[in-house]
Formats: sequence, C-alpha cells, structure tokens
Amino acid sequence: MKAGPTVSHISHADPDRVEVRGRDLSGDLMGRLTFTEYFHLLLSGQEPTDDQRFFLDLVLVSIAEHGLMPTNVAARMTLAADPGSLQGAVAAGILGCGPVILGTSEECARLLAEAADSGRDPVEIVRERQAAGEKVPGFGHPVHKPLDPRAERILELADERAASGPHVALARAFRDAVHAVSGKPLTMNVSMPIAAVMLDLGFPAVAAKAVPILARTAGLLAHLAEEQERPIGLALAAAAEKAVEYER
Amino acid sequence: MKAGPTVSHISHADPDRVEVRGRDLSGDLMGRLTFTEYFHLLLSGQEPTDDQRFFLDLVLVSIAEHGLMPTNVAARMTLAADPGSLQGAVAAGILGCGPVILGTSEECARLLAEAADSGRDPVEIVRERQAAGEKVPGFGHPVHKPLDPRAERILELADERAASGPHVALARAFRDAVHAVSGKPLTMNVSMPIAAVMLDLGFPAVAAKAVPILARTAGLLAHLAEEQERPIGLALAAAAEKAVEYER
Amino acid sequence: MKAGPTVSHISHADPDRVEVRGRDLSGDLMGRLTFTEYFHLLLSGQEPTDDQRFFLDLVLVSIAEHGLMPTNVAARMTLAADPGSLQGAVAAGILGCGPVILGTSEECARLLAEAADSGRDPVEIVRERQAAGEKVPGFGHPVHKPLDPRAERILELADERAASGPHVALARAFRDAVHAVSGKPLTMNVSMPIAAVMLDLGFPAVAAKAVPILARTAGLLAHLAEEQERPIGLALAAAAEKAVEYER
Amino acid sequence: MKAGPTVSHISHADPDRVEVRGRDLSGDLMGRLTFTEYFHLLLSGQEPTDDQRFFLDLVLVSIAEHGLMPTNVAARMTLAADPGSLQGAVAAGILGCGPVILGTSEECARLLAEAADSGRDPVEIVRERQAAGEKVPGFGHPVHKPLDPRAERILELADERAASGPHVALARAFRDAVHAVSGKPLTMNVSMPIAAVMLDLGFPAVAAKAVPILARTAGLLAHLAEEQERPIGLALAAAAEKAVEYER
Repeated sequence: MKAGPTVSHISHADPDRVEVRGRDLSGDLMGRLTFTEYFHLLLSGQEPTDDQRFFLDLVLVSIAEHGLMPTNVAARMTLAADPGSLQGAVAAGILGCGPVILGTSEECARLLAEAADSGRDPVEIVRERQAAGEKVPGFGHPVHKPLDPRAERILELADERAASGPHVALARAFRDAVHAVSGKPLTMNVSMPIAAVMLDLGFPAVAAKAVPILARTAGLLAHLAEEQERPIGLALAAAAEKAVEYER
Repeated sequence: MKAGPTVSHISHADPDRVEVRGRDLSGDLMGRLTFTEYFHLLLSGQEPTDDQRFFLDLVLVSIAEHGLMPTNVAARMTLAADPGSLQGAVAAGILGCGPVILGTSEECARLLAEAADSGRDPVEIVRERQAAGEKVPGFGHPVHKPLDPRAERILELADERAASGPHVALARAFRDAVHAVSGKPLTMNVSMPIAAVMLDLGFPAVAAKAVPILARTAGLLAHLAEEQERPIGLALAAAAEKAVEYER
Repeated sequence: MKAGPTVSHISHADPDRVEVRGRDLSGDLMGRLTFTEYFHLLLSGQEPTDDQRFFLDLVLVSIAEHGLMPTNVAARMTLAADPGSLQGAVAAGILGCGPVILGTSEECARLLAEAADSGRDPVEIVRERQAAGEKVPGFGHPVHKPLDPRAERILELADERAASGPHVALARAFRDAVHAVSGKPLTMNVSMPIAAVMLDLGFPAVAAKAVPILARTAGLLAHLAEEQERPIGLALAAAAEKAVEYER
Repeated sequence: MKAGPTVSHISHADPDRVEVRGRDLSGDLMGRLTFTEYFHLLLSGQEPTDDQRFFLDLVLVSIAEHGLMPTNVAARMTLAADPGSLQGAVAAGILGCGPVILGTSEECARLLAEAADSGRDPVEIVRERQAAGEKVPGFGHPVHKPLDPRAERILELADERAASGPHVALARAFRDAVHAVSGKPLTMNVSMPIAAVMLDLGFPAVAAKAVPILARTAGLLAHLAEEQERPIGLALAAAAEKAVEYER
C-alpha cells in the first residue's frame, strides 16, 4: 500500500479562482477552448495542436454511437428499472466498455507501439500470434464487412491532412499481414486507425482507453434522453427474457 | 410495465454504413462536426446553431473539473483498488453525480421554467420556498464566496454575445430576490447561469442533467489518467480512514 | 456540507484483532454466527432474536431471485461485454434495483408505519392516494395473479410462528381496502408482507431497502456464474436489439 | 459474437409459482433454507452439506467487514453526494472489489489448484514466481502482522471439524515455502485459507470470487445504513482532499 507523494497536477479551487493545469478557468479557458480542446488539456496538461484537435474530434465522433449496442441496451434497462437516477444508468452503460465491445483501441495501440519499437515485420508478429492461438486486435467486426466505413474515413482524413505517420503505415501493414497469413481479408475495424492516428499525433498512451469512454458516454446520454421521453427499456428486457429458455 | 412501440431515432449500423440521426456518420459527420456539435446532434436530433455550439462548449468546460471533489476521490480510490478497470472507476465517479455535488442545474432549470411560465415574482417564490423550509437551488457554494467566477463568466459571455434572454434575466432576478429575502447576499453558483443560458438557447430539458454528466466524465478521465501514472488513491483512502474514530 | 463528528460504530482492524460492533471477529463471531445473523449484527448493532433470524432468512430467500429480471439481463450483458470484471457486472445489476423493479418494500414500510402511527383507516388512505393519482405501493404484479405465492407464504409463516403483529394486520387491511376502493382484487406482491413482518419484528427502517439489495446480489452472482460457464449475454443483447426499429 | 443456446438453469416465474433450480420457491425453499444455504443452491444448483454450509457461513462472516476500507469510504462518499440512491452507493463500493483490496481468493484458488494438479513442490513454485518478479498471492497484509487472526481461525475450525484436506495442507506448505524462500515469515492473509477450505469442500471455482463480493455487500450496506443516520461521507472526502497538494 505504498504510494507516491500525494500530489495532483490537474486543478484547484480557491474562493475567487479555479485553476486548471496552471491556467485560470474562468479568466482564460472558458469561452476560448472547445470541450475537445479542454479534454486534451485536462488529460495531457497541454493544449492541442490543430491536428491533435481535429483528430481528437474525429475519433470521438467516430465511436460515440453505433446503434443499440449491449451497453446502450443495459443502460436503458437500468433507467427503466430506476428512472430517478440518470447517473446510475450512465454508470451501468460505462461498465460494459470492456474489451469485447469497446476496448480494443488500447490493445491496438500496444500492438502498434511494440511493432514500431522492435522494427519487426508485421507478418512475423501475426504468425506468432496465430501460432499462440491469440487474436490480432483491430481486425474483424460483427456488422461491418468487408470494410468498416469509419476506419476507412479516418485513414482517408489522415492521408488528406498529411497526419499519417509510421503508426498509420503499420496499421496498413498489419491489414496486409492478416490477409496474407489467414488467406482471407478481415475487416480492419475502427479501433486500429484510432490507435494509429493517436500514436502518430503524440497522444499519451492512457488516451487510447479514455477517449472511447468519453465518446460512449455521449452516446449513452442520448439513448437515456430518448428513454426518458419514449421508454423502451422494459420492452428490451422482455424481448431478451423471451429469448431464453429455463431448463431444470 | 407498459411501454411505447419499441422505436429508436438515434442510430443504426448496416454493413457498409452507420446512420446517426438520419445522417451518414462516415460520409458526412466525421471530420465535419466537432464532438460538441455531435453531442448536440445525438441528444436533440439537430445540429447546433453557432450560439448553441459556443455555449454548449462553454458550459461543458465550466463544470468538467473543480479539484479533488468527492467524485474524483471516490473514482481514484476505486482505480487503486481495481487497477485493471478504468471503466469501473469512471462508473464509480459518475455515481456521485447526485444533487449534493452536481445535480442542481436540473433543479435550477425547473425553477426558471416555472417562473417563466407562471410569470410570478421571484421574491414571492423565494419567500414561499423559505416558508416551506426548502432551499432555492443555485445559491450558496462551499468554496466560492462572494462570487463564483464561473457563474460570472457565463453571464458575461451571454451578455457579450447577446444570448441572454428571459431566463438569464430571471436568474439575476432570483439573485436579487434571495438577497432581499434572506437579508444577505448568497453566491450564485455555476448551476444557475448554466440552466439559464441553456433554456434561453432552446436546449431540451433533458440536457440540463446530461451536460454536467458528460463534462464530469472528462474530468474523471483526467484524474484517472493521473492515477495510473502517479497513484495516490490509497493515500487518499488512508487519509480518509484516519479522520474517523471507531467507537463501540 | 456540515457533517457530524467523524465516528463509526461498525468495525476496526488492529494488527492482531478485528473488532466488529464491539465483538472479537475471529475469537467470537467466526464459526458462531451465520451470515444472516452477522448481517443483522452489522446493520443494527444487535444479534438477532430467533424470530428475527428466521424471518430475515425468509425475506432474503423470498426475493433473491425471480428469473431473468432486467437487472439480471443487464448484468449478464455487461459481463459479456467486459468478461474480466465480475464486480463491474454485479454493480451494473445492482444499479437497476430501483423502485420499478425492486424498491417498493421501502415504500410499503413507510405506508404501514404512517398508518400505524396515525391510526387512520386504510380505506381512507387508499381513497386519498387514488384521488391524488398516486399508486398504493405493494399491490399489482406483472406475472403473479391473482396471488403472489411468496407473499402468501410469508404471511402464513408469520401467523404460524405467531410473529404477526399490527403491521401484518395493516397489510391485510390494505389488501381489503384496495379491493374495496378499486372494486377489483389486486395482487398483494411480496414487498408488502416483507415490510410488514420486518416492522413487526423491530427491524430498523434502513433495513427495508438494504435487505432486498443483499438478496438480489446473491441472485446476480448466480446468474453471472452461469454466464461465465455458458454465456448468453450477447444473445440477450441481440434479441433486445432486434426488437427495436430505427426510425429517422 | 457466438453464444451457446440461450438457456438458463437458475429460475423461472409463472403466475402461481416461482421455480428455482428445479424447486418450488414458496412451497419448498422459503422457511426451510437459510440465506447461506439458498446462495449455495443458487450458485451451484445443489443444497450444501452441513460442512459446506458451516464453512460458507464462516468465510462470508470472515470477510464481510474490515473497518473503513477504500470500498467503504468510496461508497460513503458516493451516498453523501447522491443521498437518494442507496443502490448507486453500493455499486460504487462493489466496483472497488478488485485484486488490490479483495480479489486474491480467486488467485489463491488458482495457485492451490495448479499445485494440487501438478504435484509440484510449493518451494519450487514460490522460487519460480520470485524469479519472475511475481508475487505469491495470499501472503502479506498491511495491518495484520505477524498473523492474520481470521486466517488462523479458519484453519483452526477446518482442523477441528476434520474438513482440512489436501488444499489446506498445501496452503500451509506455501506458508513454509514463502518463509523458506524469502528468509522471513510473511503473514498468510485470510484469502489463502478461504480458497483452501472452499476447494477442499468442493465449491465451484466461480465461488472464489462470488463469495467475497456477497460478503462485502453486507459490510457496505451496514456502512451505508450508518451513513444515512450519521453522515460522515463529506468529512471523509474533505480529509482526503486535504491530504493532496496541487502542483502546476
């Protein structure tokens, strides 16, 4: 239970001033920064460059919402069961932001960073993973085939704005490697270009998981606002229950 | 357990296309909308006007972070206890977004809307509340005295941009009314101008609670990123524990 | 933000001893108390009488599990989305323990206590509620008609063991009153006898909500153990999603 | 996103009957089973033997409560911030039931099972772990030194009731091995005998994590009941905040 000195660098409130990352919140930041710029500052201590802001907006928009995913369904059921607690329903939805539904950007970032650091051939890495029975993160999607339109759009904008660097190149190399090793093309899903672009733009490693969680919170809030106006949570629960048979 | 027809208007994913609020996510929205504009679209079905975008950014920035609030402390302790689950720690922090710490924007919005609809004098309403032993939401702050700098900045920008309407006027009238009835000035905290500006700009009622939750999620993610790099969560827990005496 | 002196009466850990409610955990309580008895001690500071223990076990057993309720469905989806976090899935399930699905024991307890204190006729109270458009808690059930077998069994055992007191009598009077006022019998659901028996046995008021939450946690853990062995969470989510139509 | 056939074996509700694990809830189980026995039935499909019931009660009692642990602190702060949602505060507390604070019973069970299956010498296993820089789960405690009184009591009762089998023997062998390899005695904490006894009594593997979560829920509910009556959550948060210095 050791811990470093108990210091925080994020913010402090005084009676007449709130300071965030060394700046005056009301005198400087409010009205000047967009929420996306402020999120970058909060997370990293730095205001973003133009490209960092553009691509942070882009990746947040790309993954905030994707239909009635399990997290949105679970959140709507939770609000239906406890209508007074919007925060409880949001929390329930965020709890499903695990690797199956959301979390592969983080794994993709790790894969790309290791490949970049080691200089190893993606084909070799994919072969190794396959031999070990491990999946290569960032490939395959239950709905999007043969292409994930969001992934393609991120790559396209990265090229257009000359933001593509070595990690975007590696992402494409992994796509070819997966195809070559498995003998068939697999959808490169949105997680891979998100990780690649964020690494090429110098985002801190922690951002690879933080960004999807913030994005999904926006989607959850939209579903829960709709649920408050036109409730379908109990109907969703009934449909789910009906799909299951009880056996002794 | 009745429910309306099970319809959702938010989004749908097809193999080659994700549609959000009737728009093509990758072909239209990605790269064009900021995250704030997208959040507005998700929540309301409409892209924001310039003023709506400006003030949505402003209120999100104004309440995302305010030092080591109980929600940030609880989230950091939770991550220290379960370091593998960023989503779990975020959820724990969001669960504290209740009326004591966060939720008064919603109550302020209700107060302002009722006053606007009824045309009643704020002094009368404040007196009635006081007689009933009820607090007037949006006044008083444990740290900020005599003014909450965030509240003042929002009012200033609303005036500057000619966005102040009847609800901002009512917010000021309530400040005077609280002063007159209680005989002493009470800090108008940030919740009141947030509610006033959002009502004057036509935000849907559900936004008054959704906006603070999204904002706080950004602050939570910053604290949890810092916790991952320089952990203080167990030290926070130890300091809290030490402050308590066990009595039989 | 006032608070009483920071004192807790529950427990304290020393290097060689854990003390709980003034007792030695390992030297006295472990091996002597059942979990139910210990829960009573933790919650109230007192070890239960024989009747308190019997009925606490009874009510915990009566509401721990009731098929694929929304809370169980939401928890199973959450585990399917984030298989590494059993605690996250339990938390998601508990978040649905709101008034629609679970929480009416607390309201029933309040109704019975008010009726007992005021001595007013249940028929009058039911009429008043109906006139105000309010539901009488504890009546009606989406599945159990005309009787809730769990409610009947609790009443039966309360009578058999001579534990029925004024609150059980009031629960029955409310059943008659609801029938008389509405002109048709309504199922008395399990929440009402739970509240009545607990009040007659002197349980503290806070127990009326704490007991159902502990009970449901046991049911959730059973569903999540099954989910780990034979996953159906994503199938549940798919069935729910399929039941919804997207409309622009 | 494959999934098995959507079948559940736990329970089903019909209008006049609730069936749990093939038994009639109101006609058979209610009034006959204790909550602990019912939890065993829910989790495993079997009613417990006398020894299984005794030791399940024992381990639940041994870890339900241990003073103001981070999970209890986080839960109390959460209730202070959102007093209307007991379920939200319980959920926040459960989210901290991760490996640092709670979860080592599961790892201990894995260690003991592997040692039992492989027949390898614990000294060898401990040396291997140490060489790899990995901790041996179940040893060391921030408060209890040189012995954890709860661990000793469980071993004592396991011997007294002749329930100690090969896994309890292995737990003791690991204690000696850790001492021999590290050159100094390390506290065997409560997680190790819990895992050992549960394995010797044939509990399913999933129980090693489910049991601590149910136990802690009882402790959380006690702290939250106390918080409702005598709130200290905001004082805890203030003490934690005070312990941290803001640095630019």
